[in-house]
Amino acid sequence: MSHQPLPPGATIGIVGGGQLGRMLALDAARLGFRVHVYCPDGGSPAFAVSAAHVQAAYEDEDALARFARDVDVVTYEFENVPSRTAEVLASHRPLFPGARALQVAQDRLEEKNFLRQLGLPLADFAAVDGRGDLSAAVQRLGRPSVLKTRRFGYDGKGQITLRDDVLLENALDAVNRQPSVLEAFVPFVREISVVAARGQDGAFAAYDVTENRHANHILNTSTVPANLSSEACVEAQAMARSIADALGYVGVIGVEMFVVEDGGRERLLINEIAPRVHNSGHWTQDGAETSQFEQHIRAVAGWPLGSTQRLARTQMTNLIGDDVSAWSSLAAEPGARLHLYGKAEARPGRKMGHVNRLLPGN
Amino acid sequence: MSHQPLPPGATIGIVGGGQLGRMLALDAARLGFRVHVYCPDGGSPAFAVSAAHVQAAYEDEDALARFARDVDVVTYEFENVPSRTAEVLASHRPLFPGARALQVAQDRLEEKNFLRQLGLPLADFAAVDGRGDLSAAVQRLGRPSVLKTRRFGYDGKGQITLRDDVLLENALDAVNRQPSVLEAFVPFVREISVVAARGQDGAFAAYDVTENRHANHILNTSTVPANLSSEACVEAQAMARSIADALGYVGVIGVEMFVVEDGGRERLLINEIAPRVHNSGHWTQDGAETSQFEQHIRAVAGWPLGSTQRLARTQMTNLIGDDVSAWSSLAAEPGARLHLYGKAEARPGRKMGHVNRLLPGN
Repeated sequence: MSHQPLPPGATIGIVGGGQLGRMLALDAARLGFRVHVYCPDGGSPAFAVSAAHVQAAYEDEDALARFARDVDVVTYEFENVPSRTAEVLASHRPLFPGARALQVAQDRLEEKNFLRQLGLPLADFAAVDGRGDLSAAVQRLGRPSVLKTRRFGYDGKGQITLRDDVLLENALDAVNRQPSVLEAFVPFVREISVVAARGQDGAFAAYDVTENRHANHILNTSTVPANLSSEACVEAQAMARSIADALGYVGVIGVEMFVVEDGGRERLLINEIAPRVHNSGHWTQDGAETSQFEQHIRAVAGWPLGSTQRLARTQMTNLIGDDVSAWSSLAAEPGARLHLYGKAEARPGRKMGHVNRLLPGN
Repeated sequence: MSHQPLPPGATIGIVGGGQLGRMLALDAARLGFRVHVYCPDGGSPAFAVSAAHVQAAYEDEDALARFARDVDVVTYEFENVPSRTAEVLASHRPLFPGARALQVAQDRLEEKNFLRQLGLPLADFAAVDGRGDLSAAVQRLGRPSVLKTRRFGYDGKGQITLRDDVLLENALDAVNRQPSVLEAFVPFVREISVVAARGQDGAFAAYDVTENRHANHILNTSTVPANLSSEACVEAQAMARSIADALGYVGVIGVEMFVVEDGGRERLLINEIAPRVHNSGHWTQDGAETSQFEQHIRAVAGWPLGSTQRLARTQMTNLIGDDVSAWSSLAAEPGARLHLYGKAEARPGRKMGHVNRLLPGN
């Protein structure tokens, strides 16, 4: 792999045109890059801020090839890029993060086996391909436990918690009888994430650990620094580094973890890996020396990583659905840094924007 | 004039597609606006980061009308928008800053008369329309003095310093025998600027006064805070406010001033007004709560102005021409925030980017 950095004026191809692609495009432009976006959806938020875009299906191999040949490097904003899509793109131009990261992050079972092989802590789990598996898995892991599809789950979609009153048949229906994983229930006291980057030269830089609160399975706030011992923070960042190193990763990675109280000690369990910029890293736009979006562009362009130094205590709050109707009071709030995604319609559960607030203290 | 703020999703039209338009577009996008850019030049830096653009002459009234009808408000990135262009645009959509600001800023003589009528301090001057005027003006203002064209001067173009050895005929040639102004020479000890904004509601907010150093008549560095007494800073900001109020100004304005030592006291003389975001305000992108670009968009969109609070001592350095070839070492410099404009060719004197550095201390 060449470590020759891409010069300003080079073109970065981004697969996926949502808000993450949009914010990647904005920071890429600030560094002097051109951006092309590939997305099947008309009116994608990233289209409006990029030099060119291709609106075509992820299965359209001609369009993929044309897109790839027009850019110097390809990255993506979401982990569900089909493997054949990734293969076609990678046959023309360097693809970062690489195919292995996509493969691991797309399949919950693959991801858990990968983490277990690395010796990293995670909740016990069992593969579930049907009624027999589920019955045996529930026998072993007990209730409550959580049944999740292996693929395409996000924001609480494709999962069901098996409490005492849930029939196995109904649980299988809830995951559409897809290949799934049963996870032991984790009685966590809080959720945290590590957002970090690995460069083409293997350099690694993590941001301060972030504490995350969800509402209706969707991230609501991320606050940094997390309420977590410094030992646990160091451990969390080291786990993210093991993952990134093992994947030969290039770019920003998000690693979600649970914190469990274990006899007065904080124990960490990895929940999942996102091979991309991460919602819990949006605070870095205003609270860190280098935003996660710039950092990702630096990594995929072969530039040195930027400083992940935190500038202030920061809280990021997502604006979900109708939350965005508060824009005029947020615009008037001293110190609130407003980031809106240019989405036309505020559907329930849709991420419309976020606001970063710098908090007093360090 | 309506003070109803433009909602996110509205479209802001920017006339001029250079780096100022580009940085306006990037910050407008962050606030959820769509941006359309109008510029006659193909490959304009702002085109690559906007939802749509019109490449047409400033005299193409059909194109201007179509552009204006597609947007909700029109602003511009440079003061030399022809008055007829401004008139056509303003007949379709609100234009901010308004026609009066353009009129004053486009013509050095008009500008000086405006400032004098406001009772603001500036160097003595005389209108020069030919040999007779120049001879009388030099008689009165002495040598050295500076002959500048009334219109279209920037970065030292269209001006000549009349030292003892300059013949009047050669001076007139140097300004292409255009209508001009002779200015008394100002033995300044430093150059400063006030970058400030006025909202649609008349609110006014100034950034901390910036100290500017030029090289070859082009801005080289801006450092904030300026080396200037707090009394003089307050006076400088008050002068900017008088100007903005008198013009019924909406948007960000830059006011360049000279500092003269006068018996141990700092005296200020206004040099010129820029009715737009200003190169000496680029430090606000990393050193202030609200960047000048966001601030300008807030003003033209009828939003409340953001906080102009400075976050740190900051120095902005322009990357002119070949300076940009240092991009890879700048990318690796801890704490250097790099802003590149996506211009293809690094011609001598061309502004290719800038770098902001936060400095120790307050």
